[in-house]
Amino acid sequence: MNNNSTTSEFLKMTSISDGIAVNTDIYGNNRAGRSFKSVLFRWKRSVYQLIWKHLLIYAIVYVLLSILYQFILNEDGKKNFRVLAEHCTGYSRSLNIMIVLGFFTSTTMQRLFNMQITIPGTSKSITMFILSLKPDLPEGPLIIEQYARWQILSWVLTFRLVSKPLSKIYPDLASLQSAGLLTQEERDILEKPEFTNPNTPRPLAVIDWILLLLKETFLKSRYFAEINYMRNVDVVMAYKKSCGNTIKFATQNISPALIQAVILAVYGFGCITLMARNFSKEDAPLSNALISYIPLMPGLQFFIYFAWLCFGRAAVDPFGDDEDDINVKQLVQSHIEDSIRLKDLYNRQLRDLFPNLVCHSSNVL
Amino acid sequence: MNNNSTTSEFLKMTSISDGIAVNTDIYGNNRAGRSFKSVLFRWKRSVYQLIWKHLLIYAIVYVLLSILYQFILNEDGKKNFRVLAEHCTGYSRSLNIMIVLGFFTSTTMQRLFNMQITIPGTSKSITMFILSLKPDLPEGPLIIEQYARWQILSWVLTFRLVSKPLSKIYPDLASLQSAGLLTQEERDILEKPEFTNPNTPRPLAVIDWILLLLKETFLKSRYFAEINYMRNVDVVMAYKKSCGNTIKFATQNISPALIQAVILAVYGFGCITLMARNFSKEDAPLSNALISYIPLMPGLQFFIYFAWLCFGRAAVDPFGDDEDDINVKQLVQSHIEDSIRLKDLYNRQLRDLFPNLVCHSSNVL
Amino acid sequence: MNNNSTTSEFLKMTSISDGIAVNTDIYGNNRAGRSFKSVLFRWKRSVYQLIWKHLLIYAIVYVLLSILYQFILNEDGKKNFRVLAEHCTGYSRSLNIMIVLGFFTSTTMQRLFNMQITIPGTSKSITMFILSLKPDLPEGPLIIEQYARWQILSWVLTFRLVSKPLSKIYPDLASLQSAGLLTQEERDILEKPEFTNPNTPRPLAVIDWILLLLKETFLKSRYFAEINYMRNVDVVMAYKKSCGNTIKFATQNISPALIQAVILAVYGFGCITLMARNFSKEDAPLSNALISYIPLMPGLQFFIYFAWLCFGRAAVDPFGDDEDDINVKQLVQSHIEDSIRLKDLYNRQLRDLFPNLVCHSSNVL
Amino acid sequence: MNNNSTTSEFLKMTSISDGIAVNTDIYGNNRAGRSFKSVLFRWKRSVYQLIWKHLLIYAIVYVLLSILYQFILNEDGKKNFRVLAEHCTGYSRSLNIMIVLGFFTSTTMQRLFNMQITIPGTSKSITMFILSLKPDLPEGPLIIEQYARWQILSWVLTFRLVSKPLSKIYPDLASLQSAGLLTQEERDILEKPEFTNPNTPRPLAVIDWILLLLKETFLKSRYFAEINYMRNVDVVMAYKKSCGNTIKFATQNISPALIQAVILAVYGFGCITLMARNFSKEDAPLSNALISYIPLMPGLQFFIYFAWLCFGRAAVDPFGDDEDDINVKQLVQSHIEDSIRLKDLYNRQLRDLFPNLVCHSSNVL
Amino acid sequence: MNNNSTTSEFLKMTSISDGIAVNTDIYGNNRAGRSFKSVLFRWKRSVYQLIWKHLLIYAIVYVLLSILYQFILNEDGKKNFRVLAEHCTGYSRSLNIMIVLGFFTSTTMQRLFNMQITIPGTSKSITMFILSLKPDLPEGPLIIEQYARWQILSWVLTFRLVSKPLSKIYPDLASLQSAGLLTQEERDILEKPEFTNPNTPRPLAVIDWILLLLKETFLKSRYFAEINYMRNVDVVMAYKKSCGNTIKFATQNISPALIQAVILAVYGFGCITLMARNFSKEDAPLSNALISYIPLMPGLQFFIYFAWLCFGRAAVDPFGDDEDDINVKQLVQSHIEDSIRLKDLYNRQLRDLFPNLVCHSSNVL
Repeated sequence: MNNNSTTSEFLKMTSISDGIAVNTDIYGNNRAGRSFKSVLFRWKRSVYQLIWKHLLIYAIVYVLLSILYQFILNEDGKKNFRVLAEHCTGYSRSLNIMIVLGFFTSTTMQRLFNMQITIPGTSKSITMFILSLKPDLPEGPLIIEQYARWQILSWVLTFRLVSKPLSKIYPDLASLQSAGLLTQEERDILEKPEFTNPNTPRPLAVIDWILLLLKETFLKSRYFAEINYMRNVDVVMAYKKSCGNTIKFATQNISPALIQAVILAVYGFGCITLMARNFSKEDAPLSNALISYIPLMPGLQFFIYFAWLCFGRAAVDPFGDDEDDINVKQLVQSHIEDSIRLKDLYNRQLRDLFPNLVCHSSNVL
Repeated sequence: MNNNSTTSEFLKMTSISDGIAVNTDIYGNNRAGRSFKSVLFRWKRSVYQLIWKHLLIYAIVYVLLSILYQFILNEDGKKNFRVLAEHCTGYSRSLNIMIVLGFFTSTTMQRLFNMQITIPGTSKSITMFILSLKPDLPEGPLIIEQYARWQILSWVLTFRLVSKPLSKIYPDLASLQSAGLLTQEERDILEKPEFTNPNTPRPLAVIDWILLLLKETFLKSRYFAEINYMRNVDVVMAYKKSCGNTIKFATQNISPALIQAVILAVYGFGCITLMARNFSKEDAPLSNALISYIPLMPGLQFFIYFAWLCFGRAAVDPFGDDEDDINVKQLVQSHIEDSIRLKDLYNRQLRDLFPNLVCHSSNVL
Repeated sequence: MNNNSTTSEFLKMTSISDGIAVNTDIYGNNRAGRSFKSVLFRWKRSVYQLIWKHLLIYAIVYVLLSILYQFILNEDGKKNFRVLAEHCTGYSRSLNIMIVLGFFTSTTMQRLFNMQITIPGTSKSITMFILSLKPDLPEGPLIIEQYARWQILSWVLTFRLVSKPLSKIYPDLASLQSAGLLTQEERDILEKPEFTNPNTPRPLAVIDWILLLLKETFLKSRYFAEINYMRNVDVVMAYKKSCGNTIKFATQNISPALIQAVILAVYGFGCITLMARNFSKEDAPLSNALISYIPLMPGLQFFIYFAWLCFGRAAVDPFGDDEDDINVKQLVQSHIEDSIRLKDLYNRQLRDLFPNLVCHSSNVL
Repeated sequence: MNNNSTTSEFLKMTSISDGIAVNTDIYGNNRAGRSFKSVLFRWKRSVYQLIWKHLLIYAIVYVLLSILYQFILNEDGKKNFRVLAEHCTGYSRSLNIMIVLGFFTSTTMQRLFNMQITIPGTSKSITMFILSLKPDLPEGPLIIEQYARWQILSWVLTFRLVSKPLSKIYPDLASLQSAGLLTQEERDILEKPEFTNPNTPRPLAVIDWILLLLKETFLKSRYFAEINYMRNVDVVMAYKKSCGNTIKFATQNISPALIQAVILAVYGFGCITLMARNFSKEDAPLSNALISYIPLMPGLQFFIYFAWLCFGRAAVDPFGDDEDDINVKQLVQSHIEDSIRLKDLYNRQLRDLFPNLVCHSSNVL
Repeated sequence: MNNNSTTSEFLKMTSISDGIAVNTDIYGNNRAGRSFKSVLFRWKRSVYQLIWKHLLIYAIVYVLLSILYQFILNEDGKKNFRVLAEHCTGYSRSLNIMIVLGFFTSTTMQRLFNMQITIPGTSKSITMFILSLKPDLPEGPLIIEQYARWQILSWVLTFRLVSKPLSKIYPDLASLQSAGLLTQEERDILEKPEFTNPNTPRPLAVIDWILLLLKETFLKSRYFAEINYMRNVDVVMAYKKSCGNTIKFATQNISPALIQAVILAVYGFGCITLMARNFSKEDAPLSNALISYIPLMPGLQFFIYFAWLCFGRAAVDPFGDDEDDINVKQLVQSHIEDSIRLKDLYNRQLRDLFPNLVCHSSNVL
């Protein structure tokens, strides 16, 4: 195995998401928060897109019940219907679903915000490693190549555990290998029980290699100062903890029973409001028809509750396929590009970029 | 006592949880949060499993009260029943139990999330210790063995205090000894008052040994740099504080009086809703029967409140036996496996794993 | 003054709380959170114990008002009573006391949880100091003795300011002196204005001594490395900040006006619910008697509000005498025991504890 | 390119905001929080300014509906109107919009407060760099010039991504160049794909230059101590992470769907309250006219909800043009002034400022 | 300018608050939280003191309206009054002002608590500087004097920007000079544009001097170790950031529009409740008179809302003159006393305080 093949395989990594446009429409995103009109009438990533199906079913059932009452039921049936409707109306007003949802959604969101801040990144440890090495080591670029690839590898192995879209792209080690993130040799080691305990979570195994590489770099005196060894270990340990927290976020998550209870509550409430009607005593056919066949207000009520539920649930699992989720695929891509860019830090001199910059020559004077 | 026995006893540690499947079903867990149908109809770890008993009793009592009203009471009794029912209805609507529960549950959950992030881990201090040592010390593996085992021991002694399932597995020092976490000599020292003050919390006694080991390592110049001594002390002190916070979490917890008050509120509310009925003036036998004998809506109400209460209480004591609790037994297991794996970091060289990796040989060129 | 007397006085410190059982019933505490029955029927540290007096008075007044209405008032009086009752009923339903209480209690509790995590501890700075010293200094034990005692002293002086029970045990310097925490010489210095500005908070004066001791240790080259001086200063400054935050917690606390407002709101609400009655139009003597003379539901309502108020207030002042408060006396005790134990770290060698441990001898080989 | 031109271009940076008064009216801002009258009757940055248009439209529609009812509709139409009004009244009381808004606004605000604290600053890294250099390097001022300008440049490039007003001032690299923040050479490098991957976010490319400059400073031994190299790298990495968090705040923001849902809820509620009327049975023409034509109370209701919505939305996008937003333009200005001031730290001696200060001469004695 | 004058001017600093009793009544403060009676009947710092005026006006208007209804209005007027009252009653029950207030007050309070923890302090940097110097420098005390005074000066200049009471005491540089915090020379430098850019915030100018002093100390080799230079710079940069956060807290505060909206909501609600009356159909003159002329219950309602509003607003601006505010004047005082005390650390030896302490002599043995 020679250097070139490693490099070329590594460069292959960039290929997976060539088709994805990296330039997110940031302004379209948060600017929209400002002008009321533009935000109300957009469809992409809108709340309408999210819940129009539920609302449609709701409206249809509502109208069907109205038809049932007015055209199908006889006098006795109508009486029964009215009694049930009154019963439902009473409960629909005493149930405080909104409080349940408010606490549920704000709890999950704050959890998500905390997680976003502490998500692990590979850029710090790679930069630190590169800048810790003695300059002009002949083997420097190779070691950095190795180090950066293992960092990316451990990152991908970690997020494969928590993000379904990523686990589809990289279902097994073979896919990682063909993406250039893993060599055949490394794959063998990960798969052979005499090297790696099959119980060991794979990201940890790779982080062990990184630590061994740091140790080797120390033993071969490749750091420009001895203290850099322990500094790099610190950074890698912080990265490891951060990976662990991400996995914890996904595994010790909000209990499914809680999500179940909230969904049930909202669906139950939706069913109650379908029946909850007031029958006016006044004889106003037009209004009564409007109220019976155009469920604007119960629909609005259900819309608010259901939308709130959706946001809470999206916050529970932020690594999914939804448009509002954290785009893990793009994140992988940018980590890879980052690592390629950062590797240049080792060999590149400032004068390579800025040949006629004053501060180079001034030392000569 | 020779080295081999220590090692073998140490390896015995792994045996306790062989039967436990380590691969948690992560996707089953949080993916379920997405597709509405799958999450509503699962039973395992569901909210139904949690509270079906209470709901059943609720339904039976509700129906019995309906039978009492309709078939057993005479006219006077019915009047009295109606008056009571009206009284209850009034209160059931003015009591804002949901707000109580919302604040209770969200407070306990945020406390739990904070705790999850700061739970103590042994991996950082073990890694740090191993990488701080001079390479190729003949006694290195033995010291590391010792250090790692004491770390695990202090971790188990700490969590025995807060987790009931763990305290059942390790009820006393003898059980720890037979699990290979404790030698006879160490047990004697922990138990003899001339060595260890019986008032001393045992995890602290073991952490003292760890500190003494760090000191000895320093005195015998086994660190590759003097500064590593204090760095390791820092890491151990942070670990100790983290253990202390975990014990604080369990001992200075939400007061039992608060839990009592919330339970009483929900039960009291449940009883009120059992009686709270509206008697329709319209003569609609079918609907009235439905309302009287199928307590869907009061049941839904009680379900929401009771479920919320359960989540709050589960968050108060997260180290228990429930399926949603933090699985402390598995955590012990993974800490032990981790420590075994990490010990390899000392003797293993990168070239042992990757014999034909470029960066080894490049130095020779 | 010789060494022995200092030591013996120091040891006296342990005597104050011999009678206190240190083994808190942790399981009794949080396990109770699980099984519903056991937690509902306990009396110790229960919510019943906390508020039974208020509930009793509430019930008596309620029944007296009922008697007044039914047996004492004439027809005109009854009319007036009914009008007032109706008026109260209206207000009792529109007042949202529960939201006030919810925000009040959750705000104070989260403040308390934050404080619990950042409470100052003496163990870190003592350990750090001991391990920073050169081994085998003849004066080492004496300096450590001094250092540890001053740490404890500053801790006690700090918590005396915030904890009433502790300020009863140590009302003045004399009591601290007789407890062995303070020597006569030190007391003189604290009390003489030529040495200590009387405006200086006493914990700060003692922390100044600690800093002077650190400086002296540096000047006499007792640290094994120069860098240890600044590290110890860092640790002591963090300890000082932590003490300052604890005092801030108590002095810049929730305003008493806020507590007053909340208490008034709950009492006012309690009074309103005493009068708030619905007089059924149906003639159902049994039920009406039940409702009039057994105030179950208004009592439950008052119970929830009053209990919630109690928890909020307990969180405002967590260093008191209540059973749920942080037990400052026991904390002092454990800090003292800790410091005694830690002092052993200086002279004790690992081989003293484990004479036949492998890692000692292996170096000889 | 000579030094002078760089300097003069750099100084041009200050020109953009000469017209902006830097002295914010702090007292006008928070003092107003105290005296009730002054705060109620101000117009600038007031809530009236924010929402008077919506309120006016609300009032007009309300009055038009009243006129419709009273003067235009015939008896049948009136009946229909009454029925609809009754229907709306019922829903307007059962919809708990305020809870939705409360959770929405408090969640976004807490997110904003967290962000305010962690907003990246250039002052720390510039100061650190200046103080790390050997004194009296001839090329020192030039390097510092370079370093400070790149710091400002990366800051502006970062905030251009999140702040619309800033992206209007600096729409492209040309505008940055003409503002003196970028030289022609640097612009070429940023724009040529052989130097900078077009996918690389531009702030990252500039931070890479900064790292290269740190490395060059190290290689040319311009730090007074070797350890300063890694310290500066640490500070720059923290700055980079902070930039990344700011971008994350803007891109992984509250989902637009959530904002949409909340806006819809408030608008829907506003429409409902327009119709929600109670028609008094008593014949009181004056009051009825008041109620019909002066929509004080529904207006107040709508005012509160709408105002709350505005605050929540403002917190979602805090870098905009509104008066309450973070003034990014002024922030750029103060960062530039800061950097100019800080550069003086390198060449200036304390004696230049304070020629007759005692502590200079005392060393001579 | 000689040393003595500096010292004496510096000592003058202490004079400003001689009259203020430093011993805060801590127990009076938080103990009161416990015994219900004592806290309800205190006047000082009570909620009564805060809002009795508003309550009085409320009561008077309420009674006047009652008189208007009963004695002045004719039958038609009464009808109109009743209709309006009914209208108001409806709205008073559907407006959820309490939720608005709850979120507003808890958000502002949590912001305040965070700020309290991170408030900048001068003690750490002064202590660190003193302990970093070589012992027995002849110019040491002078440098420390300078350093400590500048720290205090920057602190006062910072808090002058956020605290109105402090800006009254120190309205300009002249007042700071006469208080001994500023010398004539320093004032000239701050005021002359050739030395200090008039746009520069003054605290930053002083912090620049501090950094220059640190640099000078380094250049003259006054630190006992080179590393102390950067450590002190770190501490000063942290102090600077902390000052910046405090200014941010005050300038990027809760928007005045939000405060306006909340005040308007509470006042509007107060007005509605003044009119919101139920006219009992029963003829009960006594009760009706009570209800009409003793506005206990609407008063209680208004009291709770208004009190809550006051707490929220007090938390928005915590540096004011109110009794519950952070006492900035006393804080300045204690910072000055602290700095005077800390300066003793430089020259004082432990043996000066404790002449016969064992650990001094033991080294001689």
